[in-house]
Amino acid sequence: MLVHLGWHPLSRAPPFEQGATCSGWKRSVQGSCPMAPQYAPSLRSRLAPLLLFLQIGFVVIFAFCIEIESNIKADGTTFSSFYPEFQDVNAMVILGFGFLCTFLVRYGYSATGFNLLVAVMAIQWAIILRGMESWYYRGKIRVDLRSLVVAEMCTASALISIGAVLGKTNPVHLVLIGLLEVSGFVLNEWLLQVLLKVPTENSIMLLHVFGAFFGLTLTWILFREGSLQPFEKEKFDRQTGLFSMLGSLFLWMFWPSFNSVLVDNDFPWRKLGAVCSTYLALAVSAVTASAMSMLSSPRGKLNPIRMQSCILAGGVAVGVSMSAVRQPWEAMTIGFTAAVVSTAGSQCLKTHMLLAFECHDTCAVLSTHGLPGLLGWLAHLLLQIKACDDHTTAIRFAVFHICTLLLTIAVSLSMAVLTGFLLKWNLWRPPQDKKCFDDQAFWEFPHLAVNK
Amino acid sequence: MLVHLGWHPLSRAPPFEQGATCSGWKRSVQGSCPMAPQYAPSLRSRLAPLLLFLQIGFVVIFAFCIEIESNIKADGTTFSSFYPEFQDVNAMVILGFGFLCTFLVRYGYSATGFNLLVAVMAIQWAIILRGMESWYYRGKIRVDLRSLVVAEMCTASALISIGAVLGKTNPVHLVLIGLLEVSGFVLNEWLLQVLLKVPTENSIMLLHVFGAFFGLTLTWILFREGSLQPFEKEKFDRQTGLFSMLGSLFLWMFWPSFNSVLVDNDFPWRKLGAVCSTYLALAVSAVTASAMSMLSSPRGKLNPIRMQSCILAGGVAVGVSMSAVRQPWEAMTIGFTAAVVSTAGSQCLKTHMLLAFECHDTCAVLSTHGLPGLLGWLAHLLLQIKACDDHTTAIRFAVFHICTLLLTIAVSLSMAVLTGFLLKWNLWRPPQDKKCFDDQAFWEFPHLAVNK
Amino acid sequence: MLVHLGWHPLSRAPPFEQGATCSGWKRSVQGSCPMAPQYAPSLRSRLAPLLLFLQIGFVVIFAFCIEIESNIKADGTTFSSFYPEFQDVNAMVILGFGFLCTFLVRYGYSATGFNLLVAVMAIQWAIILRGMESWYYRGKIRVDLRSLVVAEMCTASALISIGAVLGKTNPVHLVLIGLLEVSGFVLNEWLLQVLLKVPTENSIMLLHVFGAFFGLTLTWILFREGSLQPFEKEKFDRQTGLFSMLGSLFLWMFWPSFNSVLVDNDFPWRKLGAVCSTYLALAVSAVTASAMSMLSSPRGKLNPIRMQSCILAGGVAVGVSMSAVRQPWEAMTIGFTAAVVSTAGSQCLKTHMLLAFECHDTCAVLSTHGLPGLLGWLAHLLLQIKACDDHTTAIRFAVFHICTLLLTIAVSLSMAVLTGFLLKWNLWRPPQDKKCFDDQAFWEFPHLAVNK
Repeated sequence: MLVHLGWHPLSRAPPFEQGATCSGWKRSVQGSCPMAPQYAPSLRSRLAPLLLFLQIGFVVIFAFCIEIESNIKADGTTFSSFYPEFQDVNAMVILGFGFLCTFLVRYGYSATGFNLLVAVMAIQWAIILRGMESWYYRGKIRVDLRSLVVAEMCTASALISIGAVLGKTNPVHLVLIGLLEVSGFVLNEWLLQVLLKVPTENSIMLLHVFGAFFGLTLTWILFREGSLQPFEKEKFDRQTGLFSMLGSLFLWMFWPSFNSVLVDNDFPWRKLGAVCSTYLALAVSAVTASAMSMLSSPRGKLNPIRMQSCILAGGVAVGVSMSAVRQPWEAMTIGFTAAVVSTAGSQCLKTHMLLAFECHDTCAVLSTHGLPGLLGWLAHLLLQIKACDDHTTAIRFAVFHICTLLLTIAVSLSMAVLTGFLLKWNLWRPPQDKKCFDDQAFWEFPHLAVNK
Repeated sequence: MLVHLGWHPLSRAPPFEQGATCSGWKRSVQGSCPMAPQYAPSLRSRLAPLLLFLQIGFVVIFAFCIEIESNIKADGTTFSSFYPEFQDVNAMVILGFGFLCTFLVRYGYSATGFNLLVAVMAIQWAIILRGMESWYYRGKIRVDLRSLVVAEMCTASALISIGAVLGKTNPVHLVLIGLLEVSGFVLNEWLLQVLLKVPTENSIMLLHVFGAFFGLTLTWILFREGSLQPFEKEKFDRQTGLFSMLGSLFLWMFWPSFNSVLVDNDFPWRKLGAVCSTYLALAVSAVTASAMSMLSSPRGKLNPIRMQSCILAGGVAVGVSMSAVRQPWEAMTIGFTAAVVSTAGSQCLKTHMLLAFECHDTCAVLSTHGLPGLLGWLAHLLLQIKACDDHTTAIRFAVFHICTLLLTIAVSLSMAVLTGFLLKWNLWRPPQDKKCFDDQAFWEFPHLAVNK
Repeated sequence: MLVHLGWHPLSRAPPFEQGATCSGWKRSVQGSCPMAPQYAPSLRSRLAPLLLFLQIGFVVIFAFCIEIESNIKADGTTFSSFYPEFQDVNAMVILGFGFLCTFLVRYGYSATGFNLLVAVMAIQWAIILRGMESWYYRGKIRVDLRSLVVAEMCTASALISIGAVLGKTNPVHLVLIGLLEVSGFVLNEWLLQVLLKVPTENSIMLLHVFGAFFGLTLTWILFREGSLQPFEKEKFDRQTGLFSMLGSLFLWMFWPSFNSVLVDNDFPWRKLGAVCSTYLALAVSAVTASAMSMLSSPRGKLNPIRMQSCILAGGVAVGVSMSAVRQPWEAMTIGFTAAVVSTAGSQCLKTHMLLAFECHDTCAVLSTHGLPGLLGWLAHLLLQIKACDDHTTAIRFAVFHICTLLLTIAVSLSMAVLTGFLLKWNLWRPPQDKKCFDDQAFWEFPHLAVNK
């Protein structure tokens, strides 16, 4: 409450002046300043042992189970044709997702730093989990560029989930979410393959739907009363908006690689199709998102943060429906619809989700990944049915396709509930409302050290 | 005038304080505050319908005319050897050009956001226009990575034009400029091919000259009295200068891809030559631009914005003369001269252009693209003449080469005049002088919403 | 004088307020304002002639000695498989190293701009020096992508050295350091090859050790009394920390390319091994650096700048030991140890180095490159000994390996001493203590010009 009153002047002052302001407000809020450190309990005794324990565990597992693939064609084309796309996906996961969330005015370090931390933990864990089967049958897991890329895509689904709870959690939470989400996602992929014979390329692409529903359930379970009014620091400013634009453009630019990287190199025309379709869908969705953002705003202006996430909707939707898209115009129509749905969702649903369903969705993952993902799934269904010659095949496919979605959502929700209850444990020291969306809870700024 | 007096306090205040300052100045400028919204007329009724109409039109055209190339070599080398360069050019067009213009202290969102918007509209339009001939003869336009890259390069020429009018126009203007400029550029390429048999690689590389002259003519036609004193917000600060440096380095790094991407893969030594020449020319022009910037400054200091654009001059000049450059030192000499010309141009010409010719050139496209482009054309001429054995061939080539330039400039100027008169129409709601170079005319900031 | 006294309040004010503050402090420091320019002596008469002289010299040398490799396989696979990795290394050298040092709150332009300047000078010089042998025997130096990449890696070693002296030197110093360091590094590579038959891939990878010791010796020789208390502007803030994070992530992402680019394309499995090992080592070192940073901080918080450099330690160490790493877990263990050593080093050694050895190490190159480099060398030794069958070979290898390191350090130290004494010459106008870490000594800001 106190800090609330003190907020308005603070929000204009550069961060390192906080120490000074503290004394300035001493008269009115006497006694609260010395207690400030208690609001952001140190995570040293939680995060550091957890990270070291997990990391040493991973090294031990890698030592016993994992070797690098040595059976590569000697002409090297497989490697060299795959490597640039691997780097594009890497840039998306590390830079794109990291900087997309820097729009929060005082949470930039956490957004990029914890994104990196969760990503590298989840990638190692995904490599291990996805190799379990191979380890069971052959005693060894072989790693090559493709398995790294698939691990990065599993990680992307964890990073999407994290977007929903960002700012209201601490890095211990985020690492646990990352590992459990990836476990759920790999389990889902395995179930889809075993039960419904869904090929890997298609099941991986459901990462948007899986990640979004996981994140939403999680933020619903972790709901705190304080979310009902806007958090003091949950806003953007001119500079952080530009950093966020940078992350968004990185995702936008490299999305064609994201959607085409798993397409087999032996079918270059399918790969070209994936690249061109994604590219055109993204172009259409950038235009449509701008138009819709302007139409839906009460003052007829563009909302930068909304636009930044909605221009990506086309890439999400086309990714999910990739294997059924044949013509550029199909991709473009999907991109158009995805941008409309995404803008409408982020305009209308965000407040409703918060008030009616107690879901506080920091980075709007529902409208950026959830709704376009569902739309992509629907487009896949319609396009595939249109391509079927007879009714029997069409109905059969529809049943399979619906089961795929239901199973994915079921696994996503159940893992999220499990994760949510684990995280509600106070052992992990959740940040208090006043320290939400604030880097200073976790990061050391030299100014404070000097001023004190 | 009023706002000038009122500027100093504003320039230190974060954007969301404007509302507050407004009341502070009420006594002296009574009555102007309530009218403020009228200064930035909403573009909802202009931009949104225009974008939706054009975008739906493009989707329909794509549905009827465009298919993805399916005739690709099965070994996939064509695809995988082309894809990284495609992504480099993509990064230049979307990130490089977008962030290059973020130096304007309050125009960062517009610079990056509208750059993306114009780029994606122009790319779709360029794909359609450049496929017209194929559509006429075969009924279908085939899209592959090469046609996407060429479309991006046409778009680059539109983005150069936009650099000249940035800040003094609204997004409706920019989209119209983008589409008309691309139409003119494709027309020019077609005329050059039909009349003078100029190969595509060479005519595309004239994009710098075409774009610069188009932009300059446009800014001359759209000249407003208010440009004679410096605009209040037409300046940079420490942070925006770094964003701009980021964009500039993206352009600098990937310029070798830009110049070599259209060289046929079947001649890898020509491709290597293009990459190495561009790389060395850029290196020389970075050094020379620093030295010249220091020599020409009255205080012997470097001007960051000038340096950021002049380090690119070598890439522009070598790009235009690419097909005649054989030796690294030729490229380096061209880079050296280009940096000298570009720095001298941006030092001396900018004010003269404004006062004598009423050309207000926001991003200095004349000295960044125009002059180095002309220099590259001249270098091409000289190198080609030097390589000719006999006088007849040399003179013949010179005549052809001069005609190429004259035709390009003629098409550029006439399209620009046409575009300029279309844009002068008040229907498009041009921003008023006080709202120039200001994101708040087009973008919604949450601070304002909260304060009101 | 005035401006000096007036500095503390200034350091919080945005740059364009300086003019105003100057008059505000007039009473206490009367008369000193007009003398201000003398504190930052113009470098026009030093830097510009030096750059132009060197650049023209380079162009002349290139004209007589250098041609582009024309003997390339016609299928183009060599070119197209190498180009993406070349661009990754390019992005690391130009963007990564440049933005890594932008954390200094008022030195962002210098960090990125001078990084570019030194890089392009050093690359040209490295191409010339490394081609001397070929020029001696064949009269011509042939340039291809591989020689550009090797030149960039030599440049990287110069950029590491520069990290140690950044902020306390002027661009003339930096250019001289760049050229002399590259000369020393190429000399070292040649000596290693001639005396000890060390292959190029291994000797190049010692760039981290060479660069770090060169930089440390240099900063020891150039030590100034003023470094004993912290410089006023040697700190970071929220925005500059994010720019620095961007640079750090660029280095992190593309490090696999850096370590694998020199591995011969004919052995794709070795290339894959290099990529996967580096990737896993970087992942482990990101996790470990976070945990260690939290453990070692007195408040249990993460230090952003320390973390940004320590996440790279794994890449450094694995790079140096690359040719002996066979299994992923070896790389991961090296990454783990490197992060521990690097964090411990940056926590404990920085102050000791300053007070005991009078080494002021701006960007902590000792703990980022020096210690992990030595660790990588040690890991190489141990792994190679483990792989040896008999004692004789092992001892022989150990002797060779120790000689390699000693020679490298000897060349590094002697070149650094030479360079240091050259730079102590007052002719180069070193910046005064008060102007250290300040862009305004070298860069022109429009605000100042307008206010005066």
